[in-house]
Amino acid sequence: MTDEQYIEKALKLAKKGKGYVSPNPLVGAVLVKNGRVIGEGYHKRFGGLHAEVEALKSATEEVKGATLYVTLEPCAHFGKQPPCVHSILEAGVQRVVIGTKDPNPLVNGKGIRFLKDHGINVTVGVKQKACQKLNEAYFKFITTRLPFTTVKIAQTLDAKIATLTGQSRWITSEAARKQVHILRHEHDAVLVGIETVLKDNPALTVRLLEGVNPKRFVLDSQLRIPLDCQLLSDSEVRKTIVVTLREASKEKIEQIQSRGAEVWQLPAGEDGKIALPELWKKMGEGEIASLLIEGGSQVFTSVIKEKLVDRVIIFVAPKLLGAGIDCLQDLGIRDLKQAVVLKDLECEKVGPDLMITGKIG
Amino acid sequence: MTDEQYIEKALKLAKKGKGYVSPNPLVGAVLVKNGRVIGEGYHKRFGGLHAEVEALKSATEEVKGATLYVTLEPCAHFGKQPPCVHSILEAGVQRVVIGTKDPNPLVNGKGIRFLKDHGINVTVGVKQKACQKLNEAYFKFITTRLPFTTVKIAQTLDAKIATLTGQSRWITSEAARKQVHILRHEHDAVLVGIETVLKDNPALTVRLLEGVNPKRFVLDSQLRIPLDCQLLSDSEVRKTIVVTLREASKEKIEQIQSRGAEVWQLPAGEDGKIALPELWKKMGEGEIASLLIEGGSQVFTSVIKEKLVDRVIIFVAPKLLGAGIDCLQDLGIRDLKQAVVLKDLECEKVGPDLMITGKIG
Repeated sequence: MTDEQYIEKALKLAKKGKGYVSPNPLVGAVLVKNGRVIGEGYHKRFGGLHAEVEALKSATEEVKGATLYVTLEPCAHFGKQPPCVHSILEAGVQRVVIGTKDPNPLVNGKGIRFLKDHGINVTVGVKQKACQKLNEAYFKFITTRLPFTTVKIAQTLDAKIATLTGQSRWITSEAARKQVHILRHEHDAVLVGIETVLKDNPALTVRLLEGVNPKRFVLDSQLRIPLDCQLLSDSEVRKTIVVTLREASKEKIEQIQSRGAEVWQLPAGEDGKIALPELWKKMGEGEIASLLIEGGSQVFTSVIKEKLVDRVIIFVAPKLLGAGIDCLQDLGIRDLKQAVVLKDLECEKVGPDLMITGKIG
Repeated sequence: MTDEQYIEKALKLAKKGKGYVSPNPLVGAVLVKNGRVIGEGYHKRFGGLHAEVEALKSATEEVKGATLYVTLEPCAHFGKQPPCVHSILEAGVQRVVIGTKDPNPLVNGKGIRFLKDHGINVTVGVKQKACQKLNEAYFKFITTRLPFTTVKIAQTLDAKIATLTGQSRWITSEAARKQVHILRHEHDAVLVGIETVLKDNPALTVRLLEGVNPKRFVLDSQLRIPLDCQLLSDSEVRKTIVVTLREASKEKIEQIQSRGAEVWQLPAGEDGKIALPELWKKMGEGEIASLLIEGGSQVFTSVIKEKLVDRVIIFVAPKLLGAGIDCLQDLGIRDLKQAVVLKDLECEKVGPDLMITGKIG
């Protein structure tokens, strides 16, 4: 097998950690000697053993002289775990093949330098794009301390997210909804506007498969949230955070807190609404590395306007509605040249629907 | 090679006739003897030799005992050409493999029966779905005498076909526009509303590649079309047909006719606008087997409401606009269950854009 193929194997292992390691990166490692895989590992949960050490520990024979394939640069600093580069050196690994450098200021080339300085043969940049994509949320978070933000929209081909009367259940298929539950599992937090809570009373949990429930944010400047809504009354209430303004009603805040949910009070922006950049900063401080925005059109419009969005995922049902609720409201764009452009567009079928993914900026 | 592979070869040949044979079907044929292709042919132009006869004529050795692969049931009637089944029989073909039956009431099983009655081994239904898809326009036309109708929309991800100020050039890429020119070549006629003529002054011709220019219909109940627009002043003016109401201004009609264009006067429907089902009937009588509708949103909405659409092709640019002109207006739908549903959804990348195709009904 080639270097690329071993890194691909390591990528597959790394993906098993999705939903469990944030705000740490996903990492996979494969240990090879004389053309045989003699060990493998991946980062399984936040604070747990690193992939490299897992691979070394799992070795079925003497490691001395082996090649270690790892999707991300091994760490050179003491964090939740001792530095991987020490373990690699001690084990007698002869060559290390690295998918991509770790942009974490604590690592960022230091791991590579350490290995080279100690006489280990190092190759960097094998399947680099795939390795970077695997950790795009971590890469943004570790360099900006802001959550990697994905907007998820479920719409018809004519971009309606609901009928004129507000019906939105279910525009897309069960298969697409399952995909949304996978996304929830893979994100640290989800966010909706209060209108969505009032209209749909969503649970925002992972139910259609096994997984980790994300934190649940509600933007609610007037604290209109009903105390008996799912977000404030189900078993995950401690993961609910209601975001409101500094001048919000103390009484309602206490009622929400007595349910077990958190309330974050933030300053208002120029438009009198919650200052979203402040919220993103506070989320980052709270180690939220990835955020999924699930609606509605007002929230979609605000976060795109505020340039807080990294990725857009649109589930498109093969339907036409004509009149209905638009996925977006006015972005202030009057000239085609000002349109928000998505890059790296991907499209796949999910049941009868399409899932279109693109990056912003 | 298997029967399927030979029919696939015949399908590829048949596609070469796209744009040249309507309202006749696209047909390809391959002649095989002792595992070797000894002849091939396709229907090249309306009224020309049929694919089967082309294949027989091209044979490089004695046909007796050969197998003929043909995408569509051979004809058994005298049309522009003598019946193919006679030629097949006379040539001594031993076996005929047919992609699909011809629903043309003049053929519809008669060709198959004739071959069987004369002792030829016949297999029907190899790659049947692909063979039917190849001629979906012909199949609809030959059984209903109405044109197979495709709506083509170019829009953003949020389904805007123009900015609020009406800018629509160019939402999609050069690659997508080239694809539209291919579609024009493949259709007998294109149709737009008068608003599109007034706003964009389109030529609706095939320019980005070589091909046949379609007939060009304009829906114009008030005869507002400017005499100096491209449709009434370019070299293809004889292919322009302005469709208006019976009570339209005689003077303007004469002016349009003096330019070389045709004017069709039709009765009004209940809404006072041109009765579209009447227009479709008249198009069918004029041997227009396939029609491409290119805009704008009023026309899209009317033809979908009137259930005249067979296929929708949406070019989606990876852009978001927020406010803008919607691809569709009110279809009268208030309940999600009434949404217009597309079947057989397909999605492919065309340059940076997506091309999404689906069938209605």
